[in-house]
Amino acid sequence: MDKRVFEGLLYDFYGELLTQKQKYIFEGYYMEDLSFQEIGELYGITKQAVSDMLKRTLKQLSKYEEKLGYVKRFAEQREAIENAIELIDLGEKDEVKNILNSLLD
Amino acid sequence: MDKRVFEGLLYDFYGELLTQKQKYIFEGYYMEDLSFQEIGELYGITKQAVSDMLKRTLKQLSKYEEKLGYVKRFAEQREAIENAIELIDLGEKDEVKNILNSLLD
Repeated sequence: MDKRVFEGLLYDFYGELLTQKQKYIFEGYYMEDLSFQEIGELYGITKQAVSDMLKRTLKQLSKYEEKLGYVKRFAEQREAIENAIELIDLGEKDEVKNILNSLLD
Repeated sequence: MDKRVFEGLLYDFYGELLTQKQKYIFEGYYMEDLSFQEIGELYGITKQAVSDMLKRTLKQLSKYEEKLGYVKRFAEQREAIENAIELIDLGEKDEVKNILNSLLD
């Protein structure tokens, strides 16, 4: 998976555990494509401070994933469901049921 | 949902974010059915301290659920998948696909 996409997913899954300031800075950089300089000007901090804060935020988000693993879990689940949808049209009832039952474990 | 079952789920979903001591005390009470007194003796603290710690731990776990909502999300998903499994045997292909597609949103 592309690094930036993965970082976006980390934020989707655990962003609510960040402070409001961390969220603004993360969103400025990742969603609004602002530079460190531009974000720094918005919040009255240096671009170095923005860079440091983003690094710490990513580390924190990675730690949550390491402990909880929901990004990985949802990606695997998604793949299984997409697979099941394809198999429905092929009439593979038992196989579809096996896949869905495995999601209930 | 039964309160104690829900508290167990909170622990399943977010327990990894607790400290080792919080985990031991939670597991002593919820999984090993020890009394506050017995847990206190194991860790050299009073039963009141055990009670306070459990209360704080539950509050912390509830906060995670409030912010992330994975207990609720997984329960809903589970219900949808169980529903889909039943519909497969009834030959309701389109309905099954609708349910599975809704899980990909």
